[in-house]
Amino acid sequence: MSSEDIKKARSAIPFNREHLESVLRQRFFFAPAFDLYGGVSGLYDYGPPGCAFQANVVDYWRKHFILEEDMLEVDCTMLTPHDVLKTSGHVDKFSDWMCKDRKTGEIFRADHIVEEVLEARLVGDKEARGLVKDANASAKEDADKKKRKKKVKQIQAVKLEDAVIKEYEEVLAKIDGYSGKELGELMQRFNIGNPVTGDPLEPPVAFNLMFETAIGPSGQLKGYLRPETAQGQFLNFNKLLEFNNGKTPFASASIGKSFRNEISPRSGLLRVREFLMAEIEHFLDPLDKSHPRFHEVKDVKLSFLPREVQEAGSTEPIVKTIGEAVESKMVDNETLGYFIARISQFLLAIGVDATKLRFRQHLANEMAHYAADCWDGELLTSFGWIECVGCADRSAYDLTVHSEKTKQKLVVRQKLEKPVEVTRWEIDLTKKLFGPKFRKDTPLVEAYLLNLSQEELASKAEELKNTGKIVFQVEGIDGKLDLDDKFVQIEKRTKIEHVREFVPNVIEPSFGIGRIIYSVFEHSFWSRPEDTARSVLSFAPLVAPTKVLLVPLSNHKDLAPVTAQVSKQLRTEKIPFRVDDSGVSIGKRYARNDELGTPFGVTIDFDSCKDGSVTLRERDSTKQVRGSTKDVIEAIRSITYGGVTWEEGTKSLTPFTSQSESA
Amino acid sequence: MSSEDIKKARSAIPFNREHLESVLRQRFFFAPAFDLYGGVSGLYDYGPPGCAFQANVVDYWRKHFILEEDMLEVDCTMLTPHDVLKTSGHVDKFSDWMCKDRKTGEIFRADHIVEEVLEARLVGDKEARGLVKDANASAKEDADKKKRKKKVKQIQAVKLEDAVIKEYEEVLAKIDGYSGKELGELMQRFNIGNPVTGDPLEPPVAFNLMFETAIGPSGQLKGYLRPETAQGQFLNFNKLLEFNNGKTPFASASIGKSFRNEISPRSGLLRVREFLMAEIEHFLDPLDKSHPRFHEVKDVKLSFLPREVQEAGSTEPIVKTIGEAVESKMVDNETLGYFIARISQFLLAIGVDATKLRFRQHLANEMAHYAADCWDGELLTSFGWIECVGCADRSAYDLTVHSEKTKQKLVVRQKLEKPVEVTRWEIDLTKKLFGPKFRKDTPLVEAYLLNLSQEELASKAEELKNTGKIVFQVEGIDGKLDLDDKFVQIEKRTKIEHVREFVPNVIEPSFGIGRIIYSVFEHSFWSRPEDTARSVLSFAPLVAPTKVLLVPLSNHKDLAPVTAQVSKQLRTEKIPFRVDDSGVSIGKRYARNDELGTPFGVTIDFDSCKDGSVTLRERDSTKQVRGSTKDVIEAIRSITYGGVTWEEGTKSLTPFTSQSESA
Repeated sequence: MSSEDIKKARSAIPFNREHLESVLRQRFFFAPAFDLYGGVSGLYDYGPPGCAFQANVVDYWRKHFILEEDMLEVDCTMLTPHDVLKTSGHVDKFSDWMCKDRKTGEIFRADHIVEEVLEARLVGDKEARGLVKDANASAKEDADKKKRKKKVKQIQAVKLEDAVIKEYEEVLAKIDGYSGKELGELMQRFNIGNPVTGDPLEPPVAFNLMFETAIGPSGQLKGYLRPETAQGQFLNFNKLLEFNNGKTPFASASIGKSFRNEISPRSGLLRVREFLMAEIEHFLDPLDKSHPRFHEVKDVKLSFLPREVQEAGSTEPIVKTIGEAVESKMVDNETLGYFIARISQFLLAIGVDATKLRFRQHLANEMAHYAADCWDGELLTSFGWIECVGCADRSAYDLTVHSEKTKQKLVVRQKLEKPVEVTRWEIDLTKKLFGPKFRKDTPLVEAYLLNLSQEELASKAEELKNTGKIVFQVEGIDGKLDLDDKFVQIEKRTKIEHVREFVPNVIEPSFGIGRIIYSVFEHSFWSRPEDTARSVLSFAPLVAPTKVLLVPLSNHKDLAPVTAQVSKQLRTEKIPFRVDDSGVSIGKRYARNDELGTPFGVTIDFDSCKDGSVTLRERDSTKQVRGSTKDVIEAIRSITYGGVTWEEGTKSLTPFTSQSESA
Repeated sequence: MSSEDIKKARSAIPFNREHLESVLRQRFFFAPAFDLYGGVSGLYDYGPPGCAFQANVVDYWRKHFILEEDMLEVDCTMLTPHDVLKTSGHVDKFSDWMCKDRKTGEIFRADHIVEEVLEARLVGDKEARGLVKDANASAKEDADKKKRKKKVKQIQAVKLEDAVIKEYEEVLAKIDGYSGKELGELMQRFNIGNPVTGDPLEPPVAFNLMFETAIGPSGQLKGYLRPETAQGQFLNFNKLLEFNNGKTPFASASIGKSFRNEISPRSGLLRVREFLMAEIEHFLDPLDKSHPRFHEVKDVKLSFLPREVQEAGSTEPIVKTIGEAVESKMVDNETLGYFIARISQFLLAIGVDATKLRFRQHLANEMAHYAADCWDGELLTSFGWIECVGCADRSAYDLTVHSEKTKQKLVVRQKLEKPVEVTRWEIDLTKKLFGPKFRKDTPLVEAYLLNLSQEELASKAEELKNTGKIVFQVEGIDGKLDLDDKFVQIEKRTKIEHVREFVPNVIEPSFGIGRIIYSVFEHSFWSRPEDTARSVLSFAPLVAPTKVLLVPLSNHKDLAPVTAQVSKQLRTEKIPFRVDDSGVSIGKRYARNDELGTPFGVTIDFDSCKDGSVTLRERDSTKQVRGSTKDVIEAIRSITYGGVTWEEGTKSLTPFTSQSESA
């Protein structure tokens, strides 16, 4: 089979999620945790192949990012005291909205319930209009597809007004952006209650998604399991800067578990309560966001879905190079662009289908409370486009708020070669007035004001002079704010400076490893057209759990010494392999390992005993070649770790035709 | 310097913990977590060199155990529901004893307070007898040495009766073995209260050491952070067995964080609340504990401290091969012995000092509630001998209790080649009577009875027949138990069996990675006798955070292209390195990296620009050799990853004498 044939074969049979899941379960890639005890939703264990796949992905991530770019890896604790996450904003803002049914005690996630009830009514309308046959059946199928419980038990075939339909559709399009208050109003306006009984629900209340615990025996030190690895990196900023001899830019990185107490987890591995993250915090000068290695990636072509395209109601991506994207300011700066390109390279190397990858810019209303700009690396799966990597510009938010709270400086001090006379706008805050006025929002307001650009300060100074106050809006705070000159003074000042001191900005590429892994499973899965029961996981050799299946042709004792010999050589070369000397046919043994994604098979037969030659089989094409053990292992090594193609790696080996593989 | 000279130099200056700690802090190997917020005791973050060291240790662990022995690695969740840990015994038994001072609200760990008060009184006695000059000063020094708060503020010089001294000393020798009730009695008998005020404390109560949380929005599903990774492996037993085609023996393994809410953590990295563990669960036939690869390790010589030696009050180890230890039954079986030897090989490879490693057998009263036998791999540090690896035979305890609780079989089914007629003693339990009688101890009692050997059953049958009951003791339950024939029947029966069904036993090697790492730090640390301010961490190249420091002789622009060229080659070879092109002297740059444990330095000078040759420096001896970049990198590669010695690896390179290293 040529690579063109393989491509054709891989897309011949339509993707079937039930089939993939049954393979993943049967081969123990993963399983619901505590299965024996009935399971706990949102918690999964990785079995041997899943765990090896994950370890290989993490290993490659470490090489691709940390080693390649001299990043400073840290390993911080998951247990985090309350004060830290209060300052970061997670105690107040890291939550979803939930509604309780007072009668039954059931708890619903507010946006989900609105979404599902309105969708059900739209389907009911279609049935009433004769556009759908059996609305209930199709709703059930749809719920199965999205892997969620069908909450609306019985769809009524009721025709809706055209204006109502339009309103429902508008609400559904914006469902991710509503506040709790707005969700509550929607539920009242559209009369949305418990989908089974119809009883009204209590108004939405914020449910914080962090797991809470108490540290120490007195129970008085409240703590949480971290919702991200980022905070540990920010808190160690001064030590990292010192380790880096005081110089910026530099990046820290962290790989570890984070936690999110989902209200009602669904979508299998895509939405879980405990998950592996890999995060980079790249600290850089806010005045210089160029990147010295940007030229190396500038020609990388990517699919972009910028904000304006989405706001125009389109999902048609713009394809261009990252160089063009930065040039045109679609992507804000070189460093953000550099990481977007490097993320793409990483994902493709571990087996993501390039046609199922896009970078989508966050809309203003969906950005996290700290982000200045954000692009998500999204992967297309049977659940739709899934956010797998975030690439955010967190500005100076985190360092600023921790510094404010702890009264310790988190800054870079850059010695100026010659002292300079600097004239610039400066803003002074009368801080003692801020706390009483803004309470918990104080850090947000202060960070906003202290990060105003020179242009903005000039304009605000004008405004303050003319109107006696400034009016502004802060991300994460509802409504407009205003302050008079008792709170702020803005002046142009001239000073001689010897040292420049600045709070660095942070670019944060953040990877959800579990989501990426599941997406790669989907992108790698296909069934052989000649026998659809025989499925294959076409993993890249680099990340495949096991690289080689070693199969003696039979149980004959003469084959055992050669098997032992080849095993020893593979072990010396540190190539992960497994021996299958079970009695079943070669074809069956290969079929089993195709499902495990093992890229190579090495067959030992009676000729091997005579001349030491063995057969090498490639998983996707089932092509076979033959050569000495040494040459075959060298081919495996160079294809797996050297990035060489099968054709290239095996050109010194002889094509080999064996008996059919069918069992 | 010859290796003999290095050895001499390394022991010339006495070890000083304050010095080591200041180096580790300054080079950011680790730091107290949340330092910026004042810290949380028992929580530490690893900085870049600590994190890289940890990653290398874990990587080698994975190769040495998982890859080398085809173990099945799993990655299970840390969040664990209450029922699982109730069944395993942790909810009831995983606790320390604490006493509260009702007046001040202070909380003390009961065994610590007894220990410290009695020690203080013994020192006071010595002062009264004129054997010690300033008891308070020496107690303070002692507390500093053990890194704990000195709880007893003022030592009184009071002479004690000789009999009292003897009694105190006996109590102190057995301090780890007392129950809460016994500790409370000791406190009353010796009048031990708050060491500052003298006020009496409340009687000891059990404080469970697991961190508790609630899973899901209703708050009704109580969960804990796992105290060990083992339970996840046991719960997946059936899936693992199936993955292994139903065959035993096999081993699973897991690397991940576990948690322990210490009452008052001390001793730095040795006693922390969140820690990395690596655990193996080797499932095997209780009737056959031989190991097929035991012959490979049988000549490994080890220091043993068996139970009898300790009970005789000695700490003099017995040195013998593991082969002799198993032969003489000092170590119970081959598989336990095999793992003890493999643990030793692992520890030595990552830099443990062989003279500071011993294997100590647990005394009967200190064994965990599930263990049938246990040997600890202990490392000698400035805190004394520290348990770093446990190697326990957990018998069939865990699988039995989970199976009982969930009513699901956790067994191996072995098809017999020919059906056999089997005559054997069988025990039947009238289970419905057990619960009401033994309550929470029921699983322990049942597991004990179901695991009786044929000899024991024969003797118990005799006892039951003669006396109408059996009397026995169960590990973890106080006092003697008895049961009559309404509860148990023991009969000799003959059956034809086609399949043998058994609950496997488990041998569990369990590694505390953080403790091992800290011990290696101590074992690797020394100061150069010629300049004691210059300290060195002599890490094995295999686990050193960075392998190579690349130093251009000066900032001259001609050297930059060669530096870039060598960097590229090192990156291609995937050898972790760092460039130091700061302006400071070569000597200073090397001194900094000696403290980071970087084993090799590569110097680029003006000759390098002409002929491409570079200098290679070895950290401990400061020896230098010279050769082509290619040969030098090959030497680094073979010494670091090939296990080759410096002499062997550099024999094709030319000795090189440079200017002095002193800064």
